[in-house]
Amino acid sequence: KIDGDRLWDSLMEMAKIGPGVAGGNNRQALTDEDGEGRRLFQSWCEEAGMAMTVDQMGNMFFRHEGTEPDLDPVYIGSHLDTQPTGGKYDGVLGVLAGLEVIRSIRDLGVRTRRPIVVTNWTNEEGTRFAPAMLASGVFAGVIDQDYAYARHDAKGRTFGEELARIGWKGNEKPGDRKIHAMFEYHIEQGPILEAENTQIGVVTHGQGLRWIECTVTGKGQHTGSTPMRMRRNAGRGLAQLTELVHEIAMKHQPAAVGAIGHIDVYPNSRNIIAEKVVFTVDFRSHLLPILSEMVEEFNAKAPAICEALGCTFSAETVGQFDPPAFDPALVGRVRSAAERLGYSHMDIVSGAGHDACWVNKVAPTVMIMCPCVDGLSHNEAEEISPDWAAAGADTLLHAVLETAEI
Amino acid sequence: KIDGDRLWDSLMEMAKIGPGVAGGNNRQALTDEDGEGRRLFQSWCEEAGMAMTVDQMGNMFFRHEGTEPDLDPVYIGSHLDTQPTGGKYDGVLGVLAGLEVIRSIRDLGVRTRRPIVVTNWTNEEGTRFAPAMLASGVFAGVIDQDYAYARHDAKGRTFGEELARIGWKGNEKPGDRKIHAMFEYHIEQGPILEAENTQIGVVTHGQGLRWIECTVTGKGQHTGSTPMRMRRNAGRGLAQLTELVHEIAMKHQPAAVGAIGHIDVYPNSRNIIAEKVVFTVDFRSHLLPILSEMVEEFNAKAPAICEALGCTFSAETVGQFDPPAFDPALVGRVRSAAERLGYSHMDIVSGAGHDACWVNKVAPTVMIMCPCVDGLSHNEAEEISPDWAAAGADTLLHAVLETAEI
Ligand SMILES: NC(=O)NCCC(=O)O
Ligand SMILES: NC(=O)NCCC(=O)O
Repeated sequence: KIDGDRLWDSLMEMAKIGPGVAGGNNRQALTDEDGEGRRLFQSWCEEAGMAMTVDQMGNMFFRHEGTEPDLDPVYIGSHLDTQPTGGKYDGVLGVLAGLEVIRSIRDLGVRTRRPIVVTNWTNEEGTRFAPAMLASGVFAGVIDQDYAYARHDAKGRTFGEELARIGWKGNEKPGDRKIHAMFEYHIEQGPILEAENTQIGVVTHGQGLRWIECTVTGKGQHTGSTPMRMRRNAGRGLAQLTELVHEIAMKHQPAAVGAIGHIDVYPNSRNIIAEKVVFTVDFRSHLLPILSEMVEEFNAKAPAICEALGCTFSAETVGQFDPPAFDPALVGRVRSAAERLGYSHMDIVSGAGHDACWVNKVAPTVMIMCPCVDGLSHNEAEEISPDWAAAGADTLLHAVLETAEI
Repeated sequence: KIDGDRLWDSLMEMAKIGPGVAGGNNRQALTDEDGEGRRLFQSWCEEAGMAMTVDQMGNMFFRHEGTEPDLDPVYIGSHLDTQPTGGKYDGVLGVLAGLEVIRSIRDLGVRTRRPIVVTNWTNEEGTRFAPAMLASGVFAGVIDQDYAYARHDAKGRTFGEELARIGWKGNEKPGDRKIHAMFEYHIEQGPILEAENTQIGVVTHGQGLRWIECTVTGKGQHTGSTPMRMRRNAGRGLAQLTELVHEIAMKHQPAAVGAIGHIDVYPNSRNIIAEKVVFTVDFRSHLLPILSEMVEEFNAKAPAICEALGCTFSAETVGQFDPPAFDPALVGRVRSAAERLGYSHMDIVSGAGHDACWVNKVAPTVMIMCPCVDGLSHNEAEEISPDWAAAGADTLLHAVLETAEI
């Protein structure tokens, strides 16, 4: 078994970097705080005897040697970046549990034939730079590296510039390494495991996602002296499309979700009718036909809704992945590890996107999920229990040891 | 007659300070640009022989002496601050036309019995610091000075601090002066005069206003892994209240308007359901009972709409004034001046709020309006013609000379 206290202490130590305003974290990708978190993680990994390689996307790889160094390694990874108002566990748990697996293996004095590599994937959250899972996407060859470098935050700073600025642009070409298998341990971010009183989620599938960045353009005019019939109010476009997104998602219950979380209004003055609203629609389903149907319905209806308001509508896809199915053999190995350890477990579908969803395109991949209180995530109040964290890390250790061939 | 070219040149010169991004201006209240605009205006007024007094709200008063200095002066004034994406004429026309009236009087060598005071009122727009017409409101005794000093912008900087920072906090107690009559010349900001092919708007009344700053609070949760039935999406509260505001205003056509121009979403991340939305409702009517009815209907319905979404609703009034009726004698004097000068004119109701609306509480007041192209204002593309500007300034000159007793 892993050392649950040591894992928890590391989680709490990392959470001191980029503290939020309400007990959580704000350690967004490629900020100074991200750089500081990476350095702390590096120091821990090097203490545990691992050697670092960083690729051109800033992905960090720490290698624990196997007795047969020529065999393809087993990977364990997730992400250290957080939402602007994020929790202490989303992503971080999976990275530090990977470190804890290596620390435990060293404590136990066991050797594996295959090397084990612990990974921190860059910019998983996608808040500062859309899309999410940007660097694992480049690694998997599904996102172009130049496109990734050119992605910019709300202030216009690009991913490429910011990666260089914080000093984490490495030399290795992304994707230029062989992976025997990859494990990602992550909090569920939903309410199912807690409601079912279950310690371990064995992730068989994930939801697909479409992020549609919409721009509704009307006319910025005086709110007092412009007659109602002359108005072209982009704010009403936002309002009607917000409800449209909800209605479309509700048609496909319980197999889909939809919402708008990002909204920027211009010029955003109390006495100017909204001239332009830019916002991102988030549609998800674990069934590809439903996902496609939702996007089609939205794209078919949105322009006419805006036109009826005297506004124009345009849209751009800024993030997308299809529903992934994880590797059945690895899924079975996670399930039997939990079983063997006596932990309650159930098969589950991931509601969120994860780096494992992209890596799954190029190597056998699986995820393990940890319950989280009230299903709350992407919120500073995100919480898990140390026992939950340890149970999943134990399961991870066993499944990894089996895969890395003890 | 005034010198139309000189007036236009001054308008263009002032527009160089705080240029916008699309041909207009961004010279918001108490920014460095506001300070620079004030200094330019000061230099022009002093060249024209006027002496400056500044009050504790930063209101600037330039006095042109009368032959009987003990008589209460006639005031001409408006504002030099602009919207973040404002035009070159909104407010500025009325201030610089006041200066042009004095320049013309000096050129003509005429003397008036009463002094004439040209005024720049601080923070008329209310974008950076709500409410609008803040400093004329304090002058008129309807807004408390300490309340005004404590108003803050989106970055938390207060009105009082910023006024001191730009060096325009004077000594005179606001309101501590006698006003025989005040004239405000302003662009219409609406489409009526242009549509009626009329040079001069004789403003008899104005609309009243209510600004209701609303906060809808839901729960910030993951957009992917939170089941639809568990969501408390504050963005849907915004959506439904946007449409409610529109419906309420449409019930009272053509006697009312309503919209939401200011919207801030928290935490504003693509994969977090909106936790909180703060926005300001702008309701207006020239009929007080309709204004009250609109606010009542909104306040009665908004909480239940939010509650049905699992969200909470709270509201605060951040700006309000009742529909003003301008001084009939002064209105008649403006009308007959336009008539005498051979300018086409019509009576009109002001759709926007103006400093004159507050000064009207403490002294006889009237407004003159200039057409504007397509009724467009609070937009960088705001436009008027030099001939229109000059016609109104001529009318202003004649009405002021009659009132100041030539
Ligand atoms: N796990 C997670 O929250 N990833 C961010 C991408 C997403 O929105 O699903
Ligand atoms: N004239 C003008 O636009 N004033 C700002 C206050 C308002 O919104 O009416």
